[in-house]
Amino acid sequence: MFETAELGRTTSKKDYKEQEPFLRVGLLTVQYELRESDFPVILVLGGNDQLGCTEVLNILHEWMDPRYLAAHVFERLTQEEAERPRFWRYWRTLRPRGQIGLYSREWTSRAIVERVVGDIDEVELDRRVRNIQAFEKALSDDGALVLKFWLHMPKKALKKRIKSAEKNPGRAWRVLKEDRIIVKRYGEVSDVAERVLRQTSRDESLWNIVESTDANYRDVTVAQTIIQSLTKRLAQPPKARKSRRHAAAAAPNAITVLDRVDLSQKLEKPAYERKLKRLWGRLAELSEKAHKRGMSSVFAFEGWDAAGKGGAIRRLTRAMDAAHYRVIPIAAPTDEELAHQYLWRFWRHVPREGHVAIFDRSWYGRVLVERVEGLATEKAWKRAYSEINDFEGQLAHRGVLVLKFWVHLSQEEQLRRFKAREKVPFKKYKITPDDYRNRDRWSGYELAADEMIQRTSTDHARWHVVAGNDKRWARIDVLQIVCRAMAKALEK
Amino acid sequence: MFETAELGRTTSKKDYKEQEPFLRVGLLTVQYELRESDFPVILVLGGNDQLGCTEVLNILHEWMDPRYLAAHVFERLTQEEAERPRFWRYWRTLRPRGQIGLYSREWTSRAIVERVVGDIDEVELDRRVRNIQAFEKALSDDGALVLKFWLHMPKKALKKRIKSAEKNPGRAWRVLKEDRIIVKRYGEVSDVAERVLRQTSRDESLWNIVESTDANYRDVTVAQTIIQSLTKRLAQPPKARKSRRHAAAAAPNAITVLDRVDLSQKLEKPAYERKLKRLWGRLAELSEKAHKRGMSSVFAFEGWDAAGKGGAIRRLTRAMDAAHYRVIPIAAPTDEELAHQYLWRFWRHVPREGHVAIFDRSWYGRVLVERVEGLATEKAWKRAYSEINDFEGQLAHRGVLVLKFWVHLSQEEQLRRFKAREKVPFKKYKITPDDYRNRDRWSGYELAADEMIQRTSTDHARWHVVAGNDKRWARIDVLQIVCRAMAKALEK
Repeated sequence: MFETAELGRTTSKKDYKEQEPFLRVGLLTVQYELRESDFPVILVLGGNDQLGCTEVLNILHEWMDPRYLAAHVFERLTQEEAERPRFWRYWRTLRPRGQIGLYSREWTSRAIVERVVGDIDEVELDRRVRNIQAFEKALSDDGALVLKFWLHMPKKALKKRIKSAEKNPGRAWRVLKEDRIIVKRYGEVSDVAERVLRQTSRDESLWNIVESTDANYRDVTVAQTIIQSLTKRLAQPPKARKSRRHAAAAAPNAITVLDRVDLSQKLEKPAYERKLKRLWGRLAELSEKAHKRGMSSVFAFEGWDAAGKGGAIRRLTRAMDAAHYRVIPIAAPTDEELAHQYLWRFWRHVPREGHVAIFDRSWYGRVLVERVEGLATEKAWKRAYSEINDFEGQLAHRGVLVLKFWVHLSQEEQLRRFKAREKVPFKKYKITPDDYRNRDRWSGYELAADEMIQRTSTDHARWHVVAGNDKRWARIDVLQIVCRAMAKALEK
Repeated sequence: MFETAELGRTTSKKDYKEQEPFLRVGLLTVQYELRESDFPVILVLGGNDQLGCTEVLNILHEWMDPRYLAAHVFERLTQEEAERPRFWRYWRTLRPRGQIGLYSREWTSRAIVERVVGDIDEVELDRRVRNIQAFEKALSDDGALVLKFWLHMPKKALKKRIKSAEKNPGRAWRVLKEDRIIVKRYGEVSDVAERVLRQTSRDESLWNIVESTDANYRDVTVAQTIIQSLTKRLAQPPKARKSRRHAAAAAPNAITVLDRVDLSQKLEKPAYERKLKRLWGRLAELSEKAHKRGMSSVFAFEGWDAAGKGGAIRRLTRAMDAAHYRVIPIAAPTDEELAHQYLWRFWRHVPREGHVAIFDRSWYGRVLVERVEGLATEKAWKRAYSEINDFEGQLAHRGVLVLKFWVHLSQEEQLRRFKAREKVPFKKYKITPDDYRNRDRWSGYELAADEMIQRTSTDHARWHVVAGNDKRWARIDVLQIVCRAMAKALEK
């Protein structure tokens, strides 16, 4: 794979000087045109020549307008990053549409080096590769242009480069331990890199292998590729973000998972209060234990309007310490959130160790309301299933307890509750004309919820369908599920 | 001061039970009304009874809708927080308009405890008090309702409370070292607290001292005060955010700081290139040193359109490592930024140790464009001077190098540049009709810039007025100022 990057290609100083003004104009032109467009650019600079990556970062900042560039060179994890799933640190640095983010010592280079030094084994490397694939695919499916460069240097040249950098007092500090490892274990690095690069080279995120020995050739090649790729992409018409079609109504006799829920389940007040007290004691104990152990949790609540999500959440939080949980109501996204891939706004709220994030509505909006109301294209909501599974998989892998609840309800009970709410002064805020309108789409939502549950109920993040016609039953059920899951997770 | 909180007031269980439903309805009602209004609530829970604060946090989460509450209990600094000015951790947790943030073990309680244990001296305590005053004033001037409760417990009761908590296996972990210190050094804590509370009790942010011995009395009192204060505030008409008036034009013959700038200063190309190379070498060295030492910098660029801010910034960054600086172009705020006090968006970008943030336009927009275009009320931009001085003071106190540049230009030269830009393909993006329109307000901007420089040029954050008619001169001037300031800062 790297043979083509050992051909000894160079660009003479004269050619470089001649091309530089054109490259600058070209880069600035695409950069300014990008600002008017609706997608971001993820520019990855990896390679065995890490010092070269830094040089390219710098030259790009010189040639382009640095106001609309942001470079991220990932070194040591900060504590806040270490307490969350690995890709949290990458998600938080993503740029909004119209801008370019440059990434060095990034997700792929990191995985390769960690494998070579033995920080991770083959199984973990495979997992990383899948994470990388899913990450880049989610971004490019959302419209991002993912442009990846791998700066390759043959062993001899690399050795010389590191040596000379180490001798230069102004440069020596830039040589990291991992750069020395890359030279020392050159063969291993090449083997792992070849495999990982092949696995992470996909249509939408191909690696461009660049011969890095001659800096002039390298800079010119990278700049030209950026100009070409961006020009090509900018010439494409913007993608539709909204779909006009609504989800097909369910076939009249289709039986869904939800139909099988026994909505007649009930709990009388005395039994309810007895159970409630017992479960609160238990949950208080478990939550404290989880906090002390640094175990974090993410609970997502979905369900019909007025199904009692809020009430169930309040019965949960009652037993937890307000300092350790956060309830995150999901409503319309802010414009900053809209300028990113849709999962970005949920990654923002991934809790620190020992903390709990409770989502009142969640990332499932994409396959529920956005699908049914035609706010997302069919393509977008269809691919969301695997994006979501990947997101939750990363949480679970980091040891986060992920629980998902669908609070179910009959149409009749919902109507009764709407009417009742309108009579209570501090509840009437909860009822809007939208709520009634949504009732017309009941079967569309039912179909969407059914498919969602089937496609995203995974081992590490199961859906729990809760019968919500009786509020007491639902609250106790949620509490029981949470307690059981926490106890099990804490046993590990 | 605390005598009134040692009267032994209690609320019987019966009264509590009777009042609870009314308090709940009251709290929910004001909370939902708040959601429709345009200000946030900063609810501070301090006191010598820190365990009581946690209990109140929890009861408020139970009685109110936790979806629109966010509690922050500040314990150990995270690394990312430790690397920035002290109040960064508070700014980042602020809630947008319409929501309530609850803060415990917060800025005031923290300062008191740190003074008692000797972590900070009297001078530092005074500084903290000023920071607290400025912080709360900035928020309340922006419309926030700052509601502060101090939960006071007499020594005996407090001792008993800590002891019993320590004996309870489920509670013992909640008792922090500082809670024990508060009991052990009760007298000192009371003395310091009394002084600090008096100094931080201002019209817009009065402390409510609550007798905390009886939990029922305490909860009812806090809840009632919240309901009353919010009801009162919600009854007030919303404040105007925009002013219709433009800044008065300068008196025809007023001489401004800017008039004294010698715009004829020039640099020929050979001298420019010689100096440029020398300064780049010097800056590269200084930047690396600063990075290694963990010294961070904030540079703000203001000046006329087309004055050459961007070019000067690029000549600066040329000598720095792209991994260590970030250029932040300031344009219209996002809706998330608009939902906070105006400095929030700049606090977000305060750099980590060893990093540089370069602002292309800055927080000075409030006293420049927002003032001249009538986007901020006169009251708002007038108080911005001291808000800004305080912000920069906190940066400087943390060891951040703060440099501010006004790149000056004559009206004739500006026009010449506009015309020239229109002819260059990748520069024409920079010219909009707004640019021409702004020229009509030249004297208004001149007056505003003059006042800004006079009011915000401080010892720790001086304004540097750069003659911009000759681009070469301006770039070299900026580089020299930066080099000199960095060298001086690194000598310390």
